[in-house]
Amino acid sequence: MKVGIIGGSGYTGVELLRLLLPRDDVDVAFVSSRALAGTRVDSQFPSLRGFTDLSFANPQVDDIIASGAEFVFFATPNGTAMLQAPALLAAGLRVIDLSADFRLRDVGVWEHWYGVSHASPEWVERAVYGLPETHRKAIASARLVANPGCYPTSIQLGFLPLVERGLVDLNTLVADAKSGASGAGRGASVANLLAESSDSFKAYGAAGHRHLPEIEQELSGMAGAPVELTFTPHLLPIIRGIHATLYARLADTTIDLQVLYEERYASEPFVDVLPAGSHPETRSVRGTNFCRLAIHRPQGRDTAVILAVEDNLVKGAAGQAVQNLNLMSGAAETSGLQQPGLLP
Amino acid sequence: MKVGIIGGSGYTGVELLRLLLPRDDVDVAFVSSRALAGTRVDSQFPSLRGFTDLSFANPQVDDIIASGAEFVFFATPNGTAMLQAPALLAAGLRVIDLSADFRLRDVGVWEHWYGVSHASPEWVERAVYGLPETHRKAIASARLVANPGCYPTSIQLGFLPLVERGLVDLNTLVADAKSGASGAGRGASVANLLAESSDSFKAYGAAGHRHLPEIEQELSGMAGAPVELTFTPHLLPIIRGIHATLYARLADTTIDLQVLYEERYASEPFVDVLPAGSHPETRSVRGTNFCRLAIHRPQGRDTAVILAVEDNLVKGAAGQAVQNLNLMSGAAETSGLQQPGLLP
Amino acid sequence: MKVGIIGGSGYTGVELLRLLLPRDDVDVAFVSSRALAGTRVDSQFPSLRGFTDLSFANPQVDDIIASGAEFVFFATPNGTAMLQAPALLAAGLRVIDLSADFRLRDVGVWEHWYGVSHASPEWVERAVYGLPETHRKAIASARLVANPGCYPTSIQLGFLPLVERGLVDLNTLVADAKSGASGAGRGASVANLLAESSDSFKAYGAAGHRHLPEIEQELSGMAGAPVELTFTPHLLPIIRGIHATLYARLADTTIDLQVLYEERYASEPFVDVLPAGSHPETRSVRGTNFCRLAIHRPQGRDTAVILAVEDNLVKGAAGQAVQNLNLMSGAAETSGLQQPGLLP
Amino acid sequence: MKVGIIGGSGYTGVELLRLLLPRDDVDVAFVSSRALAGTRVDSQFPSLRGFTDLSFANPQVDDIIASGAEFVFFATPNGTAMLQAPALLAAGLRVIDLSADFRLRDVGVWEHWYGVSHASPEWVERAVYGLPETHRKAIASARLVANPGCYPTSIQLGFLPLVERGLVDLNTLVADAKSGASGAGRGASVANLLAESSDSFKAYGAAGHRHLPEIEQELSGMAGAPVELTFTPHLLPIIRGIHATLYARLADTTIDLQVLYEERYASEPFVDVLPAGSHPETRSVRGTNFCRLAIHRPQGRDTAVILAVEDNLVKGAAGQAVQNLNLMSGAAETSGLQQPGLLP
Repeated sequence: MKVGIIGGSGYTGVELLRLLLPRDDVDVAFVSSRALAGTRVDSQFPSLRGFTDLSFANPQVDDIIASGAEFVFFATPNGTAMLQAPALLAAGLRVIDLSADFRLRDVGVWEHWYGVSHASPEWVERAVYGLPETHRKAIASARLVANPGCYPTSIQLGFLPLVERGLVDLNTLVADAKSGASGAGRGASVANLLAESSDSFKAYGAAGHRHLPEIEQELSGMAGAPVELTFTPHLLPIIRGIHATLYARLADTTIDLQVLYEERYASEPFVDVLPAGSHPETRSVRGTNFCRLAIHRPQGRDTAVILAVEDNLVKGAAGQAVQNLNLMSGAAETSGLQQPGLLP
Repeated sequence: MKVGIIGGSGYTGVELLRLLLPRDDVDVAFVSSRALAGTRVDSQFPSLRGFTDLSFANPQVDDIIASGAEFVFFATPNGTAMLQAPALLAAGLRVIDLSADFRLRDVGVWEHWYGVSHASPEWVERAVYGLPETHRKAIASARLVANPGCYPTSIQLGFLPLVERGLVDLNTLVADAKSGASGAGRGASVANLLAESSDSFKAYGAAGHRHLPEIEQELSGMAGAPVELTFTPHLLPIIRGIHATLYARLADTTIDLQVLYEERYASEPFVDVLPAGSHPETRSVRGTNFCRLAIHRPQGRDTAVILAVEDNLVKGAAGQAVQNLNLMSGAAETSGLQQPGLLP
Repeated sequence: MKVGIIGGSGYTGVELLRLLLPRDDVDVAFVSSRALAGTRVDSQFPSLRGFTDLSFANPQVDDIIASGAEFVFFATPNGTAMLQAPALLAAGLRVIDLSADFRLRDVGVWEHWYGVSHASPEWVERAVYGLPETHRKAIASARLVANPGCYPTSIQLGFLPLVERGLVDLNTLVADAKSGASGAGRGASVANLLAESSDSFKAYGAAGHRHLPEIEQELSGMAGAPVELTFTPHLLPIIRGIHATLYARLADTTIDLQVLYEERYASEPFVDVLPAGSHPETRSVRGTNFCRLAIHRPQGRDTAVILAVEDNLVKGAAGQAVQNLNLMSGAAETSGLQQPGLLP
Repeated sequence: MKVGIIGGSGYTGVELLRLLLPRDDVDVAFVSSRALAGTRVDSQFPSLRGFTDLSFANPQVDDIIASGAEFVFFATPNGTAMLQAPALLAAGLRVIDLSADFRLRDVGVWEHWYGVSHASPEWVERAVYGLPETHRKAIASARLVANPGCYPTSIQLGFLPLVERGLVDLNTLVADAKSGASGAGRGASVANLLAESSDSFKAYGAAGHRHLPEIEQELSGMAGAPVELTFTPHLLPIIRGIHATLYARLADTTIDLQVLYEERYASEPFVDVLPAGSHPETRSVRGTNFCRLAIHRPQGRDTAVILAVEDNLVKGAAGQAVQNLNLMSGAAETSGLQQPGLLP
């Protein structure tokens, strides 16, 4: 199958290429970048030397259609896909958007958090939220998939078994989440310099982060009732990895949480419930599409503590997008995503 | 004044030396280490070259008394001070214990968490818990100070203004805390190798950590009522620093949290309340005795989120011990502790 | 083909498993570890969950032969393979030894640097040094391959084109090499704790390192004349990666160094000569079997500066061992080694 | 004494403040920053909270003179001091320039490497190179001190005893130097993002770095003859610290190098020669003005290997500037610079 990548000069772009280029069944027809048009992709990302001869391009809609690409990934900043995707969709291409443009079903909420008018509300309602563990079937036939955010993926997978069964108080959920620095993207910035952010740690966006409404929307959907979450993101001095530490007040304290989680995820290829008493490390999923979970109930009290890890660039972005591509194209869901993590 | 250090070969030992050696009013009479006896201190810690000619010693009680030391720090593993301190106390020396031996007032609880019988219960009741912000007066005249743990210091200072005023639900407190690797001490271990723990992140002790009863004891004391805390420690891939992210359900939502905290800590030399909307970084207190705090109330809902940072080896250990020494000896409370953090 | 791994609990062990387990044409018959016998491999290395059900074993020679393994990797500390490999070789198995036991052709030199008598000098002379770029043919038919050390691989590949053509002064070569912390292995140690070695940098073994005689032996072989090298290893606060900065006095200053290197390595699948003016980053080869090189001649003077990077656990150990397995077994040389580096 | 800082928003600016603010004998009259004028200094650098109420200013020459400052530090990018310092010097103020503007005595060479015309060649010849170990006397009476670069300080101190005594071949010196990321400054850049530069390592500027002519100028001055150096800088994934590994061919192999270095630096307060066989760590000088050295002669051959470490922001910049201020003002040379390093 032929695919194209719009916005390939950032971290989700290079990660898509890392996952797609070695595949025999995928042909990357183009990688776009306005700023780097004409530059060889492997001069920006020497890790790809030997795997591609592509140069960044700046294709117009007609060029993209002429390229024969059936699937197009948007690895662009928020606000681009809503402008450019509709023409491609109209031409019959199928789109996987890694940005936030189509994740919120309520356009008003989206406009509140993103501060601009939405350019394509008609596609918002047709977009499918791309978390396979909750929307697998709809993804398979979707024309436009809104690939989830990195925080939302780990937090949803961590809360899902409890929330969908109504086992916890829906108004006092807490997600204390920590993300590696690649989550901030590849833009030049003082705050993300190694000399500023290594050997240090801080929270950010404690008063409100754009991923909050996305998480509450999906958790509410699982619960069939409104969910209120306190969400605090933090910046970890590591490159890749998200660790979400989740707190929920149990409404039912008789349930065996370990069994609940193991059964819920028994047939999920990329969700791995660790043995009781475990503490997942972000490095165990480095470079992979796995989300690893552990469940605790400290002192046998009525608060459940769930630990969830993922690689923010893989299950939190490009890997999940490839998983969605597999579902949409009819390839095996795990194609190209079956490598152990890089440990150490 | 003359002081001695028992157990000077670990991180709290070298940190005590870093803080004490440059002082004109303090004379370090001896530094003990059974394993390193006879070795120059600066051969273990080259950062101290030029500041001391001491070698590690292995002094007996009589030697310590003969040394003329008025104050003795125990920078030893748990279980040592309860054996060795009583003889020194009996001889009139005053002791600051950086281990956990005298922190819990309930000997049964201590024995449950530390797994051995307590060798000196009679001194447990005479010990003063060494958090100046809550026990300043008693510390000044104490013969034995139980210097607080690193996590407990940041968590107590973060919750104090809310808990002592009864403004929050005391049964649903959450402390999601992250510590730098020096908190695990200087012992050889696989788990703490750079190749294992850098570029990664994990929780540990989620089912129960020894600092929990210490924190609940002190918070309950502030509140005048039992407090239940869910406490999850995590290992940060940084050398120094603790960041505690604290969650509390507000019982009273009319209070101005910013004003509350600023007023409570207005005269505290080492607690710094940041402006509203801030996110303290651990590096801002690197090498210093400060605890920096910020208070948030996300979405204006009824959960308060408090962010607290400290250097686990300074305010979380050796610096607080020096602050206690200053109080006990009548020196200015801030003596030897007035340096800006090392940033970057 | 069936393979076995002796000593699978260290970093080269888990790296062999990472590279071998996903392969369809390789069956890992056993992984041994005396200390961990009976423990599931994936409980030690959660990154392998889902890829193997093996437990560590402690097989005797007969068990190994009965397992049907045709190839056995020794991922053991120095001194083990020379004791255990001969019986396996006698039984017709072929051995790839990742330790130093069979790397030095002069047993006396080996005994000087390693401080013990060699237990199997008869196999020293039959062993083939496992650097494919210089001994490819002999490797293919070897019964015992001495897989090169991590430093020696990068330094030899960096100097090879100059030394084999006699273009530099052979007595004043300098190799200033820097290795990530995984090169020190997975043993508990104070010096390699994150709190000791992160945010810091140092040389070690400046007076003499065991890899020196191995490098000089092989460089001398290339040159057909004795080579003297000044070799200084350093410890980098990173997990994986070696960067060798090499200095050589040019005997012939008319040669185009860029062309020389590009031509020498044109058909090598795992040596990548970067464009003129480049500076290879260790991360560009993270997790891969590539060695990337760049060549400079500062100020147009007569000193050549060669920059070489590799992943010490892949091209510097397990990946090269797999490359050798491929050559020995007749599989495609690049089988299982064709993934782009993990960047970022 | 009253001092001012021009360009206080970068790393050398905040480091000057860290060293100067706690002093009783120094009054910081102003800190300038065009971009941040009006902002409180401690809002940019929270580590300074409680140590200053200053805001960044944008003073004109008249304001600076009116401020009463006797000494002015330029912590500005290259090219600013040569424009602004002359007016201050003409008014009788004394200037310590931390940039490169006045370091090269040959204006033509300066213009070649910095790519612009020099605006103040008349002050180039009156400037004193601010390395106290070689120009102490001239510094004391200087009106304008050209504070050395970070690499040049460690490399000169490492080679000095050998070069000034003519004990080595002056044409084949090699300096393989590694710098922490703060050496690149506080400007936003992609290359210095944590996600780009942590867990990785690379050389840069191998074909020619601006510090080369400065080093060759000063080494030649020590030798009384031209010196040729091959200098390769590298980027370390640490915040602070330079490690220079120096190689020199001994012209005289009878000399006891350890004794030579110890005697040369016996009375230097900030140069510390480690015992024979040592390997200095950058962390041992973290936050301090020390340069620590060790000397090796591998295999007893005729190449000397010198290891030198310093904190690039202290002895490599702000600390050396304060040492120069002390010399110029008649304060004790070590005033404000006597703290042990922050280890761990």
